[in-house]
Amino acid sequence: MEQIQNQDKLSIVALGGVNEIGKNMYVIQYNDDIVVIDCGSKFPDESLLGIDLIIPDISYLLENKDKVRGLVITHGHEDHIGGIPYIIKQLNMPIYATLLTLGLIEVKLKEHGILNTTTTHVIDSNSSLTFGAIQISFFRTNHSIPDCLGIVFDTPQGTIVHTGDFKFDLTPVNEQYADIHKMASIGEKGVLALLSESTNAERPGFTPSERLVGDHIEESFTKATGKIFLSTFASNVNRLQQVIVATEKTNRKIALLGRSMVNVVNIALKLGYLRMPPDMLIEAQDVNRYAPNELVILCTGSQGEPVAALSRLASGTHRQVEVSPGDTVILAATPIPGNERNVARIVDNLFARGVKVIYGSGAVTGMHVSGHASQDELKLMLTLMKPRYFIPIHGEYRMLYQHRILAESVGVDPDNIFIINNGEVVDFSNSEARKERHIPNGNTLVDGLGIGDVGHIVLRDRKVLAEDGILIFVLTLSNTDGKTVSSIDVISRGFVYVKESEGLLKELQQIALSSITQIKEAKTNQWSVYKQSIKDAVGKYLYAQIKRRPMILPIIIQV
Amino acid sequence: MEQIQNQDKLSIVALGGVNEIGKNMYVIQYNDDIVVIDCGSKFPDESLLGIDLIIPDISYLLENKDKVRGLVITHGHEDHIGGIPYIIKQLNMPIYATLLTLGLIEVKLKEHGILNTTTTHVIDSNSSLTFGAIQISFFRTNHSIPDCLGIVFDTPQGTIVHTGDFKFDLTPVNEQYADIHKMASIGEKGVLALLSESTNAERPGFTPSERLVGDHIEESFTKATGKIFLSTFASNVNRLQQVIVATEKTNRKIALLGRSMVNVVNIALKLGYLRMPPDMLIEAQDVNRYAPNELVILCTGSQGEPVAALSRLASGTHRQVEVSPGDTVILAATPIPGNERNVARIVDNLFARGVKVIYGSGAVTGMHVSGHASQDELKLMLTLMKPRYFIPIHGEYRMLYQHRILAESVGVDPDNIFIINNGEVVDFSNSEARKERHIPNGNTLVDGLGIGDVGHIVLRDRKVLAEDGILIFVLTLSNTDGKTVSSIDVISRGFVYVKESEGLLKELQQIALSSITQIKEAKTNQWSVYKQSIKDAVGKYLYAQIKRRPMILPIIIQV
Repeated sequence: MEQIQNQDKLSIVALGGVNEIGKNMYVIQYNDDIVVIDCGSKFPDESLLGIDLIIPDISYLLENKDKVRGLVITHGHEDHIGGIPYIIKQLNMPIYATLLTLGLIEVKLKEHGILNTTTTHVIDSNSSLTFGAIQISFFRTNHSIPDCLGIVFDTPQGTIVHTGDFKFDLTPVNEQYADIHKMASIGEKGVLALLSESTNAERPGFTPSERLVGDHIEESFTKATGKIFLSTFASNVNRLQQVIVATEKTNRKIALLGRSMVNVVNIALKLGYLRMPPDMLIEAQDVNRYAPNELVILCTGSQGEPVAALSRLASGTHRQVEVSPGDTVILAATPIPGNERNVARIVDNLFARGVKVIYGSGAVTGMHVSGHASQDELKLMLTLMKPRYFIPIHGEYRMLYQHRILAESVGVDPDNIFIINNGEVVDFSNSEARKERHIPNGNTLVDGLGIGDVGHIVLRDRKVLAEDGILIFVLTLSNTDGKTVSSIDVISRGFVYVKESEGLLKELQQIALSSITQIKEAKTNQWSVYKQSIKDAVGKYLYAQIKRRPMILPIIIQV
Repeated sequence: MEQIQNQDKLSIVALGGVNEIGKNMYVIQYNDDIVVIDCGSKFPDESLLGIDLIIPDISYLLENKDKVRGLVITHGHEDHIGGIPYIIKQLNMPIYATLLTLGLIEVKLKEHGILNTTTTHVIDSNSSLTFGAIQISFFRTNHSIPDCLGIVFDTPQGTIVHTGDFKFDLTPVNEQYADIHKMASIGEKGVLALLSESTNAERPGFTPSERLVGDHIEESFTKATGKIFLSTFASNVNRLQQVIVATEKTNRKIALLGRSMVNVVNIALKLGYLRMPPDMLIEAQDVNRYAPNELVILCTGSQGEPVAALSRLASGTHRQVEVSPGDTVILAATPIPGNERNVARIVDNLFARGVKVIYGSGAVTGMHVSGHASQDELKLMLTLMKPRYFIPIHGEYRMLYQHRILAESVGVDPDNIFIINNGEVVDFSNSEARKERHIPNGNTLVDGLGIGDVGHIVLRDRKVLAEDGILIFVLTLSNTDGKTVSSIDVISRGFVYVKESEGLLKELQQIALSSITQIKEAKTNQWSVYKQSIKDAVGKYLYAQIKRRPMILPIIIQV
């Protein structure tokens, strides 16, 4: 890392969350004080075979360990807290988060056995923190999980605002109003730089209020005659509250299916984020003691996750509960791109069981609204904050790009809008910004319990193996001259089914053998010549014959 | 196959196309005469690793080879013609198709070197064919490719109608009006059974006319100042015609990028389905001789296909043409579920090049309309045909299910609506239908040039290899007693990166060794005992230590 020359230097950098959805992590540094915002994870796309999770690369923080003052969390979604247990094991920073967010974080710390060794602090929108010359305060925002914060960093060079995820819900469930007056006052005092989320920057208009979903839930509950199943993101506590209200109005009981649903409801009840009449909650194993029209079953799996409750219900493999003809299943979620096929399969299975299914885009069913600000709300935030510099965050390039256009439309100077990559540093000197430095950054891949041990070579091999399998040639060389081949065995996995392809494998054995018997002269690196020769001859033959490219692995045994 | 008892037996069966999108193939049999409708392919989902294409299993047709009279094709889309070259090699039936459809089929036959050995017949909507007691006639429909047919089978037991893919476009491009009067007359005479497509059965309303897209294309061409790139399905010839019209109005030239675009435009021009002013078409290599505002570039890749023209243009790796700031790129297609991420990456790359991109759902941009009938059009078809029996086809279960509801709503007897699976036979006897027989059916997997040689075991192995790679243990046993281990070598691919994990591999070597040295007694199947012992010991250790399950492959060499 480059030495910081100027001793009044303010810097902003993303370690994750720009040019991608997920893995959010931002760093604010003022001279020798570093504050980290969020520590998210994201799921791998289909090219990262076998990888379970992606988290930010924190080399920069590790190199500057002694400057890191703390990790401040905006809210409790996975793309903001999912990396915490992995990162905290590498760098044990104190964590600052609201009560609910911390409740969700603590579940993770416990699972990883590091709850007792991690320092956590509860904050709320009225808290203030001081790290060296950085003063931190907060404002409350609306989103699809309660207790979300925007963060204000007052520094000697000026104020930096990070919105976190937000929308403007003017009729929020549970009266968790956004601090619009506070935002106005922050903007009034002057904002040097705004970092604002871009998830819905492509979407025109104003995102509807969560109340809309409540109305539709109530309407469908009133019409339903059998059991009601409703699946949504467990963390959408305000939606769960609306389900509770509709359940009460229709005199039903609620059972919970799925680990994350049970976890979140318990935390939210305990911490007072959910209010439920006594005796409404019943155990899943007691469901069959009630008549169908006395039941609401809240379940996980709205994104079609194959092992979650909804998928099991649809395929009839849930241990405790069954969907029956006449039941109603509500999917209160829009499938995230990539999940459509799995969700569609669930709907197919449910229809085949004679169930009424309310599914499809939230815009059509009214059973889902986004938690993110649409274009008019993004413009409202920009207008409230009136920033001198603007850095769109949380989004893929086209979203950041659309957000830039929105910022220009409300008067931000186009030269003062920076679309950054992860690792690109925006440095402020005398309140003037420049973008000319990089710090190390990237994806840290989690596979099982291994963190960062799966790299490009391993993934490239997995890709080849996935496409066409492996062909192994075991050569034994005689111990008299170390060159004469005593035997060649061919073993195949994931290539062709051996019993049906004995002829082909025999041919390949011959091709491998004759490719090396053509090598007459002894070479210093005899073995690698043999190996390459087999790879070339067999590879060429196979591609010409059947257009496949399995991994070809010659193994030589000297006997 | 069960013996047909009744000698006045009419049967309908799907070999592909129900409970799935793609791979359409239907069979109509009257006593000893079999007519096949369509022969499609479909793309594998992500679980079928390394598979290129799926085609129908035609065991039933092969068993009844001497009864098969011909293959009649409704239109030239891949899900209706993509299986032809593979299937024709197994069963050489005469093919009946319209001029354009046949042009597209012949490209495939040529690629597979079977053009000269295949019998083809050109038909049109006025043709009639006789196969034994089956009389076949046709009606013209609208769809996203010209020259589409619905098929009417008159049999002694009654009339069966197969719609093919269709919409009702009342203002079709090129005046290819649907034969609505003919449909009315068919319905008037009486339809025993209707097979109607269900792709858009979940979509309310009436699908807009293709003309709508033409209007939007013209508007955007008028506004554009730089080069215009437009990407759409090459087979949507009517849309290409509208591009030509807009190109003429804005005094530009057209260049073609992508093999299928070149193929289809050439065939459509030759056969008269496209009309283009002389000198409008220029070669791709001559693009740089023209000013940006003189150019329209029609390209493949609207679904984000990584090797297609649009993707190369977006990443700046196209050999002949470059996108530049100020250019306009129009994606005249809605991403098919599963393709969103690839399309989004292209849009990101184009924005990063300073290009104006018109993208997103066709409903928003107006640059795409569906080729399939929405609910009101499906009801119109049902109303025109007034079938006694109804079999919804072309669709996943929920689409077939929604189509059933539509049929009920226009008066079809619910007991006479059959949602079938591939292979389930609907038998008619005295014009009464029963569903109680199955014929063999399934997916035939194409991998490279291999057809049907990749089965469950190979795919299961590929899945394991893809997730966690392979660990190979090569054991050499001494030739004195055939039991003592002389050496164990550990080789890994796609598991961990060897250089960073030498310690782990050494441990595994020890575990493998000690697992077999514990086996004291000589067994008859000594080698398989050794192999199982290594698999168990290493597998257990790895899962406990790092939660991974690579394929473990012990190889024993007796020396």
